[in-house]
Amino acid sequence: MRKDVFTGRWVIMADSTAVRPSDFHFDRFFKETTFCPFCETNEASTPPEVFAIRKPGSPANGSGWSVRVVPNVAPRLRIEGELGRRAEGFHDLMNGVGAHEIVAETPRHDRSLHELEIEEIGDVIRAYIARIVDLEGDKRMRYVLIFKNHGEEAGAHTISHSISQLMALSVTPRTVKTKLITARDYFALKERCIYCDVLQQELKQKTRLIAENEDFVAFAPFASRFPFEMAIVPKFHDSAFSRISPTQIEGLARILRDVLQRLDHTLGGPPYNLSLQDRPFLRPRAGYWNTIEDDFHWHVEILPQIARITGFEWASGFFYNPVPPEVAARCLSPVADAEPDRRG
Amino acid sequence: MRKDVFTGRWVIMADSTAVRPSDFHFDRFFKETTFCPFCETNEASTPPEVFAIRKPGSPANGSGWSVRVVPNVAPRLRIEGELGRRAEGFHDLMNGVGAHEIVAETPRHDRSLHELEIEEIGDVIRAYIARIVDLEGDKRMRYVLIFKNHGEEAGAHTISHSISQLMALSVTPRTVKTKLITARDYFALKERCIYCDVLQQELKQKTRLIAENEDFVAFAPFASRFPFEMAIVPKFHDSAFSRISPTQIEGLARILRDVLQRLDHTLGGPPYNLSLQDRPFLRPRAGYWNTIEDDFHWHVEILPQIARITGFEWASGFFYNPVPPEVAARCLSPVADAEPDRRG
Repeated sequence: MRKDVFTGRWVIMADSTAVRPSDFHFDRFFKETTFCPFCETNEASTPPEVFAIRKPGSPANGSGWSVRVVPNVAPRLRIEGELGRRAEGFHDLMNGVGAHEIVAETPRHDRSLHELEIEEIGDVIRAYIARIVDLEGDKRMRYVLIFKNHGEEAGAHTISHSISQLMALSVTPRTVKTKLITARDYFALKERCIYCDVLQQELKQKTRLIAENEDFVAFAPFASRFPFEMAIVPKFHDSAFSRISPTQIEGLARILRDVLQRLDHTLGGPPYNLSLQDRPFLRPRAGYWNTIEDDFHWHVEILPQIARITGFEWASGFFYNPVPPEVAARCLSPVADAEPDRRG
Repeated sequence: MRKDVFTGRWVIMADSTAVRPSDFHFDRFFKETTFCPFCETNEASTPPEVFAIRKPGSPANGSGWSVRVVPNVAPRLRIEGELGRRAEGFHDLMNGVGAHEIVAETPRHDRSLHELEIEEIGDVIRAYIARIVDLEGDKRMRYVLIFKNHGEEAGAHTISHSISQLMALSVTPRTVKTKLITARDYFALKERCIYCDVLQQELKQKTRLIAENEDFVAFAPFASRFPFEMAIVPKFHDSAFSRISPTQIEGLARILRDVLQRLDHTLGGPPYNLSLQDRPFLRPRAGYWNTIEDDFHWHVEILPQIARITGFEWASGFFYNPVPPEVAARCLSPVADAEPDRRG
């Protein structure tokens, strides 16, 4: 991993030793595969599972699972070795130590996350929690990043089976760090959580509200970067996702399926990226974040990828969004339960 | 324009009043056009030009130009009105005041920037300078952002004529602000410019060097976010692009054409984004940047778009790059002047 000296951004760099220019002709970057290692009965073609939720009595690495977590065969980070933080000239380097795992969300190839049953989505959430709790025990790790690429345009180019990805990182992601700093400054000023305050305002104004249940609210953020961007925020204040209760897991599964179904229905199956924005692990020398329990409030971000990112966004760090969130919220009307086009 | 309260990021929001969900079906987002308003003889189909370099005697808004700058017909920002900085609840809002202009780099539809003559690329650079100097006179503006989208995957989806875009902004872009802060802290510590120091290291190490002439160096940055990312940095220290001399303009045109030709040749015509990373205008209340002349050093960024951005990048703010810059620099060998496939 290399740190950009001008911005503080880390880049995970592949360890390419023998490459030829022709390897990078840009039209060769996206390859289709036909055999799917994440389908039921193909368990032998992945590395051994690190976690699964299975029918009682079914053997590890065999059939009979509802969610299954395996190490990525082409990991961007590797679990072995020391961090080796060091300098090259005045650049910062670090070994790419971490974990990169694939969460197969369903044994069936033909179903997307929003087409699963509530109980099955609950199993996916339970798998996330089990992996976070396990990886928190590795003292080299500071953060577990969970994200999902749905559709080719959102980066799901190698395999179309519905999966999430999980990466354990030895540094806190830049986006999370920015949010932590803002949330800490806000709490220092007001003695209130900025996320709780925004939530109250959204619930009161209602113009950007998309869905709500006992424990969760989904809304289109005031400064949405992407058309139809959505945030799912728990109504209860908690900095750590892994402390979610069984009832709350069900509530999260329900609101997640609801908004993903609306997105699919309203926009005709658009590609999207989804991520869990959780707090970093509390570690020695992370004293900087010793107010994190008060300051931060975990949440889920859903970013539909229907407009292209251009030079404007790269050059400025700003975004252009053709669809105001109030319009997005209005368009994303609920999908009736008896909707004939539900493929679940 | 709306500010994201969690990150400080500005988003330019379209002023959509009447939209239907079907307007956003994601496969309808990219439309082809056949008529090109930026070709010679079609001048009447654009708004009147704000700048052009023309043959002596040729009339404004007629033929006979080599580079022509016109307001964008669908601008993301508008030049009229006050900034109107204000709050909505505790969100920050601002009117989308600014300029959005198109720089037609050539009168011919069938030529890309890297296929132009040095003198023609020089004219494009001269057009940038003329517009920056003009817009600096508008006291509402803090920054002129110049960028280019080459190829559909890089966002050039409405028109294939070779153009750059110019936006005058009432705020300093987030990416530039981050660089300014880092450069200021570095100068405070070392009394040296961080860009000058990196340049010296690249010239000494040579492993990431791509091209060099009297006034400019092109290299693959140490922590490149994208495969084959390139930076062009002037050897002379200057914070403001618009102070570039006629000789330096020619040097910039030469190195720019050289590296764009290599990119085209090595990777088979990949899409890319290019941007000028200039300093903001010096304004009252910008006292924060009163050391900017020493701290900052303008440069050009070229970001080939051959790998997709996925949930990992959006969720973390980090990047994954499959091609180390040392490999990229080695692959990007010079294009011989007599290269048969040069289409210039």
